[in-house]
Amino acid sequence: MKVLVIGANGQVGRNIVKELSASEHEAVAMVRKEEQVDHLKELGAQKVVLADLEKDFSEAFSDVDAVIFAAGSGASTGPDKTLTIDLWGSAKAAQYAEENGVKRFVQLSSMGTNDPDAGGEEMKPYLVAKRAADEILKSTSLDYTIVRPGALSDEDKTENIEVSTSGFTSMEGRSIPRADVASVLVNVLDRPNTYHKTFEVLQGGNSTASELDSL
Amino acid sequence: MKVLVIGANGQVGRNIVKELSASEHEAVAMVRKEEQVDHLKELGAQKVVLADLEKDFSEAFSDVDAVIFAAGSGASTGPDKTLTIDLWGSAKAAQYAEENGVKRFVQLSSMGTNDPDAGGEEMKPYLVAKRAADEILKSTSLDYTIVRPGALSDEDKTENIEVSTSGFTSMEGRSIPRADVASVLVNVLDRPNTYHKTFEVLQGGNSTASELDSL
Repeated sequence: MKVLVIGANGQVGRNIVKELSASEHEAVAMVRKEEQVDHLKELGAQKVVLADLEKDFSEAFSDVDAVIFAAGSGASTGPDKTLTIDLWGSAKAAQYAEENGVKRFVQLSSMGTNDPDAGGEEMKPYLVAKRAADEILKSTSLDYTIVRPGALSDEDKTENIEVSTSGFTSMEGRSIPRADVASVLVNVLDRPNTYHKTFEVLQGGNSTASELDSL
Repeated sequence: MKVLVIGANGQVGRNIVKELSASEHEAVAMVRKEEQVDHLKELGAQKVVLADLEKDFSEAFSDVDAVIFAAGSGASTGPDKTLTIDLWGSAKAAQYAEENGVKRFVQLSSMGTNDPDAGGEEMKPYLVAKRAADEILKSTSLDYTIVRPGALSDEDKTENIEVSTSGFTSMEGRSIPRADVASVLVNVLDRPNTYHKTFEVLQGGNSTASELDSL
């Protein structure tokens, strides 16, 4: 599959591009700045498209088979950008996918979105935005999968994870390497048993393949 | 009908309570502060419930037949409150309505939400939040009506409006009194032809009744 990676220059995004380039799929990396193009190609992107999530980026959907949405405005900007990028960027991506007949849509969400009220004053606006993006995606006709990792780390990929569709009761100090999150996002692509599913994921005791097969 | 008014102490909210008290319906006014209770009763609220949109307010739904969501965080707070009140408050209200079998849900939205990108840097985060709240409401099993007025004024009620389900091409300097918006929100309540409809409304040349009948 040709897979459009939205937010390809992000920390998880770059891992997704690497993961795709090592798979049978092809990465079409969407980035905002010209100076990011060469680096994404070095990471293995078959193609890089320049587009801005805050504008019309429908052209990026013209020749792809699937979408992985992994964009985020990050902690250095305020909740206005959380609304226009994390939430509205995702909602528009889902709309463009529908309009272009791109049925497969994998979304990087976050643990905590099942109950934003429990997230505390600081996290709640972010969790609301991510949850709303997930709800809007669920209301589309797309074959979506929503992946909600816990705290992200920069550790090496372990390929050992634990998934939960009902949600973990707590993170209990656990986390998951970004490289493993990328592996999950890429490995669900051609697993129809993950269509229309939402699940949380942490580093755990089983192989990625067996955990994803169990969904 | 017993109608729960969420955001009853707001500028549109107070007009809704007055409008309900002059109708065959009863207003159950939901407000956040004890000191707001007496004023809402003076305006004609049959009952006032104290609850906080940023917490669990499910108890307010226990003995009502319909909901009008008219809460907004206002311009004096930032986009964090737009997320937690305008968006998440509405999403939770819709969830509580479903859980309590309250099928009828009327939402005060805003013109501009059909294309938040066109709203400009300043308005876009607000329009995204309101649009997301509308999309989440549409994805429920509720008998919703979404009302999107243009610029609000404090003029007296005219009962002369114009509605558009496809959206006005521009406001062209037009507005609509808050009192007329309240009248629309109350008058759609028992009009089944407005179920599962979203429409914009401005002051116009036809009576409120005939414009709502035309939907």
